[in-house]
Amino acid sequence: MTNYKLTIAYDGSNFHGFQRQPDQRTVQGILEKVLSKMTKGKHVEVLGSGRTDAGVHAFGQVVSFQYPGNIPADSMLKAVNSLLPLDVITKKSEIVADDFHARFGVKKKTYSYRVDCGHYTDPFKRFYTGHYPYSLDVHKIEDAIVDLIGEHDFTSFAASGGVIENKVRTIYDANVKYLEDSNELVFEFTGNGFLYNMVRILVATLLEIGNGRRPVHDFQRLFEVKDRQEARGTAPASGLYLKEVFY
Amino acid sequence: MTNYKLTIAYDGSNFHGFQRQPDQRTVQGILEKVLSKMTKGKHVEVLGSGRTDAGVHAFGQVVSFQYPGNIPADSMLKAVNSLLPLDVITKKSEIVADDFHARFGVKKKTYSYRVDCGHYTDPFKRFYTGHYPYSLDVHKIEDAIVDLIGEHDFTSFAASGGVIENKVRTIYDANVKYLEDSNELVFEFTGNGFLYNMVRILVATLLEIGNGRRPVHDFQRLFEVKDRQEARGTAPASGLYLKEVFY
Repeated sequence: MTNYKLTIAYDGSNFHGFQRQPDQRTVQGILEKVLSKMTKGKHVEVLGSGRTDAGVHAFGQVVSFQYPGNIPADSMLKAVNSLLPLDVITKKSEIVADDFHARFGVKKKTYSYRVDCGHYTDPFKRFYTGHYPYSLDVHKIEDAIVDLIGEHDFTSFAASGGVIENKVRTIYDANVKYLEDSNELVFEFTGNGFLYNMVRILVATLLEIGNGRRPVHDFQRLFEVKDRQEARGTAPASGLYLKEVFY
Repeated sequence: MTNYKLTIAYDGSNFHGFQRQPDQRTVQGILEKVLSKMTKGKHVEVLGSGRTDAGVHAFGQVVSFQYPGNIPADSMLKAVNSLLPLDVITKKSEIVADDFHARFGVKKKTYSYRVDCGHYTDPFKRFYTGHYPYSLDVHKIEDAIVDLIGEHDFTSFAASGGVIENKVRTIYDANVKYLEDSNELVFEFTGNGFLYNMVRILVATLLEIGNGRRPVHDFQRLFEVKDRQEARGTAPASGLYLKEVFY
């Protein structure tokens, strides 16, 4: 058995998320089907760095798996890509130590989130951005977003349904850029872990701040109240990208 | 009756082209359905500046129609957009003279064509670019593309099936840009008219020139031979955008 680590990108629009589900088209399900073709029917379990929801994209999701055989990393990349559908692609392939585990080994992750600020829904962006056609003060968002950096209890920013008890996470970097050419805000968050829907709830809250419907320095209060009802919105899946996973 | 001119954009991926066809989802068909809702069932014929094929996109297609009623141009825009699906949008609405005709009035059109030069098919570009993962000398393409400017017989660049006899067209501008950030070539062609598949055949020929499989200054010969077999390839629909129509 050889342990492979693949860095993959996918357009999440037509996937029911990353995680294998019976009778649903998922990224994990498709990768396992591809690998089982290569092994002539032997099941290979694919481990992901974490799930992504339906409609969420990835530039740099990481998976690992034990493969019954020893083929060069580059041949693995070519073989897998030749069998994958066009909305998912392997960008990098490495042979790694036997104890490498795509989920347990994660040190940091970077997510980005694109918001189209145009007046109307852009036909070319409908699957690839969130959309916020209301007035926004980018400086307010810039002032607010730095309050996220550090170790905080993100209970107010976790969708119900999660089973994780400890909701303390550390954000190493959080920033926002306004791109004039495309009239988009691009958020980026790097942290040691993210709770269910956390990035999408943070973005929705930051947009409320930018719109003036919430005080600029509201995050400290939201960390303290630990109440999901206080951070109501969730930005749509279409704007979210798993950008990079660090080990 | 009031004559309206709308400038529309659409993602062509899920359309069977512009032109109305029975039992197919087309841009013209959807616009006429929307307008007939607004008139409570009265058919409104939508005229387009020209057809686009299945998978071809538009940033600035122009349509016109005689509407039984006189509502302000801006209200027309809002009403139409509120009824259109998300992959087509009205960007501009004008009330025009009764003799304005979206097709007969065309003076010039600009098409652009995006080619992804990346090694692998990018999941995010598969519906929005052509793909040419082979070596390209952009200088050769730049040298070749200026040969298109002027009045020429484009018989070698017209797909069979067209019914138009006169295949002489004038190209006012033709240029190519390499975008380093996205690793894309973007072609742009402005002319007084384009034959069926002409832009896509021109792009395929220019890519062959860039790849060194065809002499740089081959266009003059191709104009003279008037033989579609000499310009074999057709770049895929996914990279083509109707950018602007001039009246």
